[in-house]
Amino acid sequence: MALLIKTDIDRGNAWAEALASAYPGLKTHTWPFKGDPAEIDYALVWKPPEGELKGYPNLKAIFSIGAGIDHLASDPDLPAGVPVVRMVEPGLTAGMSEYVTLAVLGHHRFAQDYALQRQARIWEEIPQVAAAARQIGVMGLGVLGRDALAKLALFGFKLAGWSRTPKSLPGINCYHGEEGLRDLLAETDILVCLLPLTPETEGILCRAVFDQLPKGAAVVNVGRGGHLVEQDLLDALESGRLSGATLDVFREEPLPEDHPFWEHPKVFMTPHVASMTLPESACQAVVANIHRQEAGEPLRHVVDMARGY
Amino acid sequence: MALLIKTDIDRGNAWAEALASAYPGLKTHTWPFKGDPAEIDYALVWKPPEGELKGYPNLKAIFSIGAGIDHLASDPDLPAGVPVVRMVEPGLTAGMSEYVTLAVLGHHRFAQDYALQRQARIWEEIPQVAAAARQIGVMGLGVLGRDALAKLALFGFKLAGWSRTPKSLPGINCYHGEEGLRDLLAETDILVCLLPLTPETEGILCRAVFDQLPKGAAVVNVGRGGHLVEQDLLDALESGRLSGATLDVFREEPLPEDHPFWEHPKVFMTPHVASMTLPESACQAVVANIHRQEAGEPLRHVVDMARGY
Ligand SMILES: NC(=O)c1ccc[n+]([C@@H]2O[C@H](COP(=O)([O-])OP(=O)(O)OC[C@H]3O[C@@H](n4cnc5c(N)ncnc54)[C@H](OP(=O)(O)O)[C@@H]3O)[C@@H](O)[C@H]2O)c1
Ligand SMILES: NC(=O)c1ccc[n+]([C@@H]2O[C@H](COP(=O)([O-])OP(=O)(O)OC[C@H]3O[C@@H](n4cnc5c(N)ncnc54)[C@H](OP(=O)(O)O)[C@@H]3O)[C@@H](O)[C@H]2O)c1
Repeated sequence: MALLIKTDIDRGNAWAEALASAYPGLKTHTWPFKGDPAEIDYALVWKPPEGELKGYPNLKAIFSIGAGIDHLASDPDLPAGVPVVRMVEPGLTAGMSEYVTLAVLGHHRFAQDYALQRQARIWEEIPQVAAAARQIGVMGLGVLGRDALAKLALFGFKLAGWSRTPKSLPGINCYHGEEGLRDLLAETDILVCLLPLTPETEGILCRAVFDQLPKGAAVVNVGRGGHLVEQDLLDALESGRLSGATLDVFREEPLPEDHPFWEHPKVFMTPHVASMTLPESACQAVVANIHRQEAGEPLRHVVDMARGY
Repeated sequence: MALLIKTDIDRGNAWAEALASAYPGLKTHTWPFKGDPAEIDYALVWKPPEGELKGYPNLKAIFSIGAGIDHLASDPDLPAGVPVVRMVEPGLTAGMSEYVTLAVLGHHRFAQDYALQRQARIWEEIPQVAAAARQIGVMGLGVLGRDALAKLALFGFKLAGWSRTPKSLPGINCYHGEEGLRDLLAETDILVCLLPLTPETEGILCRAVFDQLPKGAAVVNVGRGGHLVEQDLLDALESGRLSGATLDVFREEPLPEDHPFWEHPKVFMTPHVASMTLPESACQAVVANIHRQEAGEPLRHVVDMARGY
């Protein structure tokens, strides 16, 4: 059994080590692979070069290192018929909920405003709003959206969520579809995007959506850069329609040197680190799925490529 | 029945309104009071001028607007024998736990480091540490410390706390007394001070304590400015012994214009706003205690002035 690892930066070794101890019989190769492509049974990848994966004729599954699979869906030559598995692992989920809680509490408690006051040496209390008077609206009620909401529940915020298909979750106002989005936005003070990037969700964080939020709302984008129309956000911050934004993902990454987000006073930003798949915990999810496949059982977390997530 | 309100800034009216609706029979006066001091039964105060309270001969109780009563204990002429009641109310507790969670997650997720990288337009991931590998140590296991720990528990941190008397709390390593402090510090990555300011705790956040923390630990002070030896913190940040600090309270408030904290890159600071007593919810706590007193029942949350909290 052989698995090819293509990761960004130099995490290949960490993955090879983690997999070796979780599945001693598994041979791992890190990309670029010089051997016979027919030997490769599985691929574990983040942003493989376009057309790369079709070169392996015997792939049984493609494991995405990230929760999102837009980096695979964008490959026109992705081998059809090979199941694509998205990443679901507790370390990734926990990291995202930490980040979302940090971002939401930051907006709720005026962290950025206090940072600006500080720069001007202004000692002044900003009147606080009770958590119960703020609605947090999460776009995407998947693995990550639901866990983030569960953490936020503890603080007593009003909670709402939005998905494609109807949902019913205790303590959360659940909306779905186009009409549901209108209802979500009308009452949401802090909007969090945890959607997958698909043709339907591309550019969803745009002027039309910002205009439906209460004046002074804040936006947190931890989905993908492609969800956000960056100029629309800049305009909404400029006009005061939005009070601030926390951004972890961008249209172009790394963010270009001359991009206005780098020093926008109402933006808090991080370099796509909201949540990282940790080889140590994630290898268990991969290994469990390989065992399922080899035992003829159905794989878990297979992506519906027609739907895009 | 008459109650005198002495608050900071102009929250006197908000209190008067809240109390009027919670206790219609109660007459409220806002300080300065021009009438006969003998008419005043209760005082609800934040930082009254020294000697002020001894001028009211018939006081049945002094309610502190803040959780801490150091602003009263410091008055050498505080009328002896009149019970001092500290503020315990859900709004105050919730606000503090929000702030502590924000501060702890900020250190845990390198918010300040990413802000600095951003200023230099550096796009670089900082290797993340799992919550389970970090101990949060809370000094003070009172109303506020315990609630903050309950919120932090959700994220999977290792939790520890320190108090004067022995405690046993599920999921929390509880330490007490001088020896216990050593044990707490040895393993604590993010130290949170939620102590009352007393002669025993004055200056407790000092070099000796910082030197016992693991190198690179962070400190959050939401107790009182008097807990922190400011120069020792500056030295510890300079030497790298501490990686950062979040400060809400200071020796002198407002913080003097030329104070180094204003622009220290490793400090996140706010102007004593970690938690505010909200008249709307807090008036219930005050009114309930007045009813107890009038019914001859014991008051709740009376301070032991000899102990200092
Ligand atoms: N910044 C980072 O570091 C980072 C890290 C990890 C993940 N992410 C992003 O987070 C995304 C979500 O991950 P996940 O594991 O939670 O995904 P998931 O479990 O597949 O959940 C996706 C959710 O989005 C909803 N959705 C999809 N298309 C929609 C549409 N057109 N309209 C309304 N709702 C729609 C789905 O609705 P249904 O429930 O009705 O199907 C589902 O609730 C990933 O795709 C990735 O882009 C970012
Ligand atoms: N920054 C802000 O906006 C803000 C807002 C509210 C409160 N505060 C501060 O927070 C403090 C705590 O409030 P609280 O309501 O939680 O108080 P509390 O319920 O009275 O609890 C005080 C805790 O501190 C412990 N303690 C006292 N002296 C000690 C000593 N010498 N050594 C070790 N532990 C000691 C006590 O130990 P035992 O359990 O053994 O008695 C208790 O656990 C307030 O006094 C105030 O200074 C700040």
